[in-house]
Amino acid sequence: MSTASNLSDPARLSARAALAAIRAGRLSPAALVEACLDRIANRDAVVKAWAFLDPAVPRAAAGCVDPSAGPLAGLPVGVKDILETSDMPTACGSPIYEGRHTGRDAACVAALRSAGGLVMGKTATTEFAAFTPTDTRNPHAPGHTPGGSSSGSAAAVADFQVPLAIGTQTAGSIVRPAAFCGVVGFKPSFGTIDTSGMHHFASSLDTLGVFARSVGDAGLFAAAMSGWKALADPQPAPPTRVRLIPAPAWDRATPEALAALTSAAERVAEAGVPVDDSPLPDELADEITALLVAQERIQLCEGRRALAWERMAHLDRLSPGLRDHFESVADIPFEGLLEDRRLLVEGRRRIAALMAEGEVWLTLPAPGEAPEGMTTGDPVFCRAWTALHLPAIALPHGTGPAGLPLGVQLVGRPGGDPALLATAAWLETRLEPAGAPGA
Amino acid sequence: MSTASNLSDPARLSARAALAAIRAGRLSPAALVEACLDRIANRDAVVKAWAFLDPAVPRAAAGCVDPSAGPLAGLPVGVKDILETSDMPTACGSPIYEGRHTGRDAACVAALRSAGGLVMGKTATTEFAAFTPTDTRNPHAPGHTPGGSSSGSAAAVADFQVPLAIGTQTAGSIVRPAAFCGVVGFKPSFGTIDTSGMHHFASSLDTLGVFARSVGDAGLFAAAMSGWKALADPQPAPPTRVRLIPAPAWDRATPEALAALTSAAERVAEAGVPVDDSPLPDELADEITALLVAQERIQLCEGRRALAWERMAHLDRLSPGLRDHFESVADIPFEGLLEDRRLLVEGRRRIAALMAEGEVWLTLPAPGEAPEGMTTGDPVFCRAWTALHLPAIALPHGTGPAGLPLGVQLVGRPGGDPALLATAAWLETRLEPAGAPGA
Repeated sequence: MSTASNLSDPARLSARAALAAIRAGRLSPAALVEACLDRIANRDAVVKAWAFLDPAVPRAAAGCVDPSAGPLAGLPVGVKDILETSDMPTACGSPIYEGRHTGRDAACVAALRSAGGLVMGKTATTEFAAFTPTDTRNPHAPGHTPGGSSSGSAAAVADFQVPLAIGTQTAGSIVRPAAFCGVVGFKPSFGTIDTSGMHHFASSLDTLGVFARSVGDAGLFAAAMSGWKALADPQPAPPTRVRLIPAPAWDRATPEALAALTSAAERVAEAGVPVDDSPLPDELADEITALLVAQERIQLCEGRRALAWERMAHLDRLSPGLRDHFESVADIPFEGLLEDRRLLVEGRRRIAALMAEGEVWLTLPAPGEAPEGMTTGDPVFCRAWTALHLPAIALPHGTGPAGLPLGVQLVGRPGGDPALLATAAWLETRLEPAGAPGA
Repeated sequence: MSTASNLSDPARLSARAALAAIRAGRLSPAALVEACLDRIANRDAVVKAWAFLDPAVPRAAAGCVDPSAGPLAGLPVGVKDILETSDMPTACGSPIYEGRHTGRDAACVAALRSAGGLVMGKTATTEFAAFTPTDTRNPHAPGHTPGGSSSGSAAAVADFQVPLAIGTQTAGSIVRPAAFCGVVGFKPSFGTIDTSGMHHFASSLDTLGVFARSVGDAGLFAAAMSGWKALADPQPAPPTRVRLIPAPAWDRATPEALAALTSAAERVAEAGVPVDDSPLPDELADEITALLVAQERIQLCEGRRALAWERMAHLDRLSPGLRDHFESVADIPFEGLLEDRRLLVEGRRRIAALMAEGEVWLTLPAPGEAPEGMTTGDPVFCRAWTALHLPAIALPHGTGPAGLPLGVQLVGRPGGDPALLATAAWLETRLEPAGAPGA
C-alpha cells in the first residue's frame, strides 16, 4: 500500500521507507512518533484500536533511540494486549486483568526493543484472544468489524496509526483481520517467534505473527522478533507452482471473495506460473474437514484448561459467551483431546508430503468483506493452516460491494517461511488493494 | 515408600492414605498441615527445600477446605517456584524476580486447588529451571545434591515435608532429582498438564509433572492437574514386554547404577515378563545420540530467546554460567534450530513405531547416586525421552556405596501414560527403595 517516500506525512510511510529516512537523518524517531500520535488523536474516537496508550511513553522512548540501534531503530509498533510489557499494563481484553502491570516484557517485545523498535501502546484484543469482540471498528467503515482476535493491531496498521503491529493466531486471528482491514497479515510457522510472556489460550496452536502494510515490512518485523534473518528482506520470486485450494468450507465464501481469488489466480497464470485448480481429491478434502473440527475442539479444550485460574477465581468476570464455549467441551474426556492432537500430528506429516518444493497454496483468508456489527467474522478459512502449523499470509486484493477490502491467503510449506514471503512479495505487486481508509 | 496407615505421624502418610483418613474423619486437613510444618521446622535448616513458605497461608487454607471438595481435598503440596501463585511470590530462582507477586495462579495450581489441594509453599528451583544449582540439599545426605532443576520439590517429598509436589522437566529435571532423592518422579507425555502461568525456558520441551512417594500418589496428583482420569488410580499390571535400553551414553553410568538396573530387569523376568536385552541396532543408537545433541541445542536456543527480556534488562543479574550457556549458542542461525526441531519430530514418529503395544522401556534415570557439591548432576539419561515427548517415570531401587538412593526409569509409548503407570505400579512392589531420609 503506502510506499510514499515524501515526508509530508511520516505516518503513511512504510516501515522500510521510515527506517531509510531515519537512517539518512531525514526523519527523526520523535517526528515519526508524533505523526503517528497525531493520526491516532484524529482517528481514535472512530477506530478505537488501543487498549492502552500513553503518549508520554513512546515519546520518551523516541527521545532515547539511537538511529543505528538495530533493524527497527525508531519504528513505533503496536503490541497486542495479551503480551506482557514492562512499562504498560496488560489486560488481555478482560476485566479480570484491567490495569495489571506485570513488570516485564514478553520475549517478542524485548526482542523488538532490542532491535530499536518503540512500543506505541497496547492494541485491543478480544477477551483472552478468543471470541468476544472488542469495540474496535474497521477503519474502512466503522459499522463493520476489523476482525479478531488481533482487532486493534490490524486496525491500527491499516489506519496509518503505526506501521507495524504484533498479532497472535490460534484459529484465524491474524490472517482474517488483515484481510478485513486490507493489510498484510503474516502468521509464520508455529514456534517461529517465542511466546514467553504471552497469555496462552491454546498452547499447541497459539502462534505469534505480524501486521504490516507490505510484505517487506512484515518480513523485516518478523525477522527482528524471531532472529530468522532469511525473513528480513524478501526478494520477489515466483513460485514454481500454485495450487488453488477450494477448501475448506468453500460454500461459505461470498461470490465477490471467490471472484477476487479467481482474479488473483489469473494474474499468477498470466505471469507464467502454472496454477493447478483441479478439485481436491475427496480424501484430502475430508482430511481438511476433519482437521477443522479437531482444531476447534482443541482450541476450546486447551483454552478451558489454560484459564483454570480465571474460571476458579473470576468466573463471573468471564463473558457469558466464553463460559458457554467452555461449558460445551467440559464433558470431553482427556482422551478426546489426545485423539484430536494425534490427528493434527498425522495431518502435518501427510499434508507436508503433498506440497512440492517451491509450491504455494492459494486460498481465501475469509468468506468476504468484514461483516457488520459485533462479530469478528468466521475463521473457517484459517483454522486448518493454523492447526497444521504452516506459514500463511494474507494479501489485500480487490474491493467488495460495501467498499471494504477483500484479499487472498497464501499458505507455504512447513518451515518454508522465507519462500512464502518471496512469493508473497512477487504476487503483491500484481494485486489491487482497496483504497486507504479514512483518507 | 511410606504407606503407613497409623496416624502417629501424618507427615509420613502417603497422599492416598492421608486422603482416606481425611475422608473418614480420622485426620483433619489442619492436623496434616501442622504435621508437615513440624517436619519442615525440624529439617529446613538442613534440607532448604523452600523458596517461599509462610505457615499462615496453608494454615488458613486448611481451615477452609471441605473434606469432600475433590480428589486432593486437604492435601498440602509443594509448587515449583517457576509457577505463578496468586497468594505467594514467584521468583523463578532468580534475583530478577525476588519477591514478585503476579496475582494469579498458574493453570495447574488452580487445578490442584479446585481439586481441594493446599499450596504449602514454593519449592526451590535452579535459576529459571536451568543449570545454576539452588542451595537445597539431598535429604539423605546434606553434602550431596538433590538434583535439579526441581530440587526443592524432590527434596521436600523425599523428606516427608509434603506428600506431593509439582516439577517441570526440559531435559531431566523431574526424573533425575526423583532418582537422587529416592522418590517417584513422573513426567507425563508433553502437553498433558497445561503450562499456562509457568515461566518457560524451552517451550517445545518444557513438561509439567509430579513428585510423590508412590506411583499411585503420582497418578492421583497428575490426574487432578491434567483432567486425565485414567491416570488417577493406576492398577498394577505387567507389561507385555520390557526392552532394556542400554543407551544413551551408557559409558557414563556407574557400576552400582548398572547393577540396580540389572537387578530390576531380573525381577521383571522372574515375574514371567519377557525382557529384551539385546543391543540396540546401531542405527537406533545413533539416532538417540543425535537426539541428545539436538535436545541440548534446542534447550539453549529456545531458552536464550525466551529470556530475551531478562537478557536485555537484567543481564548482570543472570548467573555467569547461564550467560555463558547463552553465549555459546548466540551464533547458531535460526535454520539450525529448525533443523534440530525437525530431527525431533521425525524421531518421535520413528521411535513410536518401534514400541509395541504394551511394551515399556527400562533404563537408568541418572548415572548413579547423587553427586557431592554444587551440581545438579548429569541429565544425559533423560534428554532423549523428554525430546521425544514420551512419558517417563523414575522408581527408587537399591542403594549406592554412599548410602544414597539409586533407581530405574521406565519410558512409555506416546500418550501411553496410563499403561506406563500401571506397569510402574506393578514393578514398584518388586523393587527395594533405599531407607527413609533423616529418620
